[in-house]
Amino acid sequence: MTRLGTGGELAGEVMRGRPRAVARLISLIEAAVADPGSAADGTLREAMAELAAGAREPYRARVIGLTGPPGVGKSTTTSMLIRVLRGRGARVGVLAVDPSSPFTGGALLGDRVRMQDHATDPGVFIRSMSSRGHPGGLAWATPQALRVLEAAGCDVILVETVGAGQAEVAIAGVTDTTVVLLAPGMGDDVQAAKAGILEIADVLVVNKADREGARATVRELRTMVGLATAPWRPPIVTTVATRDEGAGELLAALDRHQAYLEESGEAHRRRLARARDEIEAVALARLRSRFSALHGDRLDALAERLLAARTDPYTAADDLLAAVAAGTEA
Amino acid sequence: MTRLGTGGELAGEVMRGRPRAVARLISLIEAAVADPGSAADGTLREAMAELAAGAREPYRARVIGLTGPPGVGKSTTTSMLIRVLRGRGARVGVLAVDPSSPFTGGALLGDRVRMQDHATDPGVFIRSMSSRGHPGGLAWATPQALRVLEAAGCDVILVETVGAGQAEVAIAGVTDTTVVLLAPGMGDDVQAAKAGILEIADVLVVNKADREGARATVRELRTMVGLATAPWRPPIVTTVATRDEGAGELLAALDRHQAYLEESGEAHRRRLARARDEIEAVALARLRSRFSALHGDRLDALAERLLAARTDPYTAADDLLAAVAAGTEA
Repeated sequence: MTRLGTGGELAGEVMRGRPRAVARLISLIEAAVADPGSAADGTLREAMAELAAGAREPYRARVIGLTGPPGVGKSTTTSMLIRVLRGRGARVGVLAVDPSSPFTGGALLGDRVRMQDHATDPGVFIRSMSSRGHPGGLAWATPQALRVLEAAGCDVILVETVGAGQAEVAIAGVTDTTVVLLAPGMGDDVQAAKAGILEIADVLVVNKADREGARATVRELRTMVGLATAPWRPPIVTTVATRDEGAGELLAALDRHQAYLEESGEAHRRRLARARDEIEAVALARLRSRFSALHGDRLDALAERLLAARTDPYTAADDLLAAVAAGTEA
Repeated sequence: MTRLGTGGELAGEVMRGRPRAVARLISLIEAAVADPGSAADGTLREAMAELAAGAREPYRARVIGLTGPPGVGKSTTTSMLIRVLRGRGARVGVLAVDPSSPFTGGALLGDRVRMQDHATDPGVFIRSMSSRGHPGGLAWATPQALRVLEAAGCDVILVETVGAGQAEVAIAGVTDTTVVLLAPGMGDDVQAAKAGILEIADVLVVNKADREGARATVRELRTMVGLATAPWRPPIVTTVATRDEGAGELLAALDRHQAYLEESGEAHRRRLARARDEIEAVALARLRSRFSALHGDRLDALAERLLAARTDPYTAADDLLAAVAAGTEA
């Protein structure tokens, strides 16, 4: 077994596509979610710098997000997509992102079982990742986990959100293509979710299309999509993921969107936005850590003033920022 | 109708307990979620400063969080609590916090209907608030909305999370007491959620206690609580909120926890932590806004370097922070 002591060694093993090193590095990222600012020192930072230096073409991997209400068949669909992508010879990474509610643990375990078909395939990396309730944790960790999977040679990375919550919207920010899944018989939910769906969906999937009401759901979505004025109108694909039905159509829709992204220049814009968000998330985490480490006493004093009604949150924040600015120039 | 043109006037009306001003100020907070940094200028800031200056005893209101898996009866229980608290003569604020998934809109509307009993009671303020998918938005907005409700004279504020997601954990950070609700027949979920529940629950409620399996759920929770080593062991209360059963027991459990908080000094510690978080959230929002406004070009240039594999996220973040530090000292 290889020693993975230093960040450089760990990065080297990741770039050779070793699953153990991939798992280890993503665990380091996940563990740092509690105090991401401190991660800017040490093994993780060293490994990430090495990965960046070794990247021939960063952001090369296609990142496809899968999201939708609980019970709609996200992980069965992910599993189906893995199969067709593997059929093409692509190396596939899967990142299951958990918005970290204390109430979704069960769903996570249940879902993972369905992916065990692929557990022994060396061309597939599957990882789940949670922000463990730390606000901003996913924004910090997800882009870095994508970097690791890309460096390990993944051509396509599927990002699946587990459960329901804030993660959907955050995930849409890191993907090239976002697939929103729905199922028949969620009529009211579709109505309620209209605005949200149109905002983030690049491809719409009606899964469980053998169930009653599938046509009505498709019709409803078609009406919604027809009203959209954006240059890309999300195609609507029907699937029965448990039987692999619609896999080819879904892949074709994903490819069309990818071609659109490249032709329109949107691909570069999305990647640039991702890079910006990634830098900003690391910078903010670093600042938050600095608040605690260097300015904990100052923050305590300001909090006491706030409790005593001797300041307001905005003025206190300005005082804190002035202290941070004075500190960083030293 | 009163003019509410300036922040000072708006704050004055809030402190006189005018529902329209309360709604208006919370809307300003919610609207600023998209760019909270910019909220540090203008009407909102002025109003919040005025509220802080006018507060006799900040953080005086008891803040009680209600959370739990979807369908467990959170808003029926909230409604029951409003009734018993009103019976004591308390002024009650309700803040329904939506983790802002595009998929939860329907649940939100459905839930609100059940609270219409209290819509015409001048001693009750009910508001929902969403972070609209902006990461960190709730951490910024929730403490400020609590300030507004407190300034309007609320003695108790119930914070209910809508749907499921990251909000539960974030909300536990702003409450004095967190109530976790469960219902019978969620055996597996309870198992899976063990760690999460014990981490945030101050009081456990088994609602729908007239259903089969209620005793088993209580037994299971009792075992879990028995294993806890913390000085406060969450009491377990059974309720049938639709019939107001268990309301008195729940209120008694809440009062016991409040007494424990005060006696142990934990009340002050929690409030101080809230004040710290509140200042930090405003400061971070301000910094993020500054990144875009003052350092957008710098961030773009760094993002291009990251795309070209000429830097890594940590080094780029350091470069950005150096630019921000240089900017703020000027």
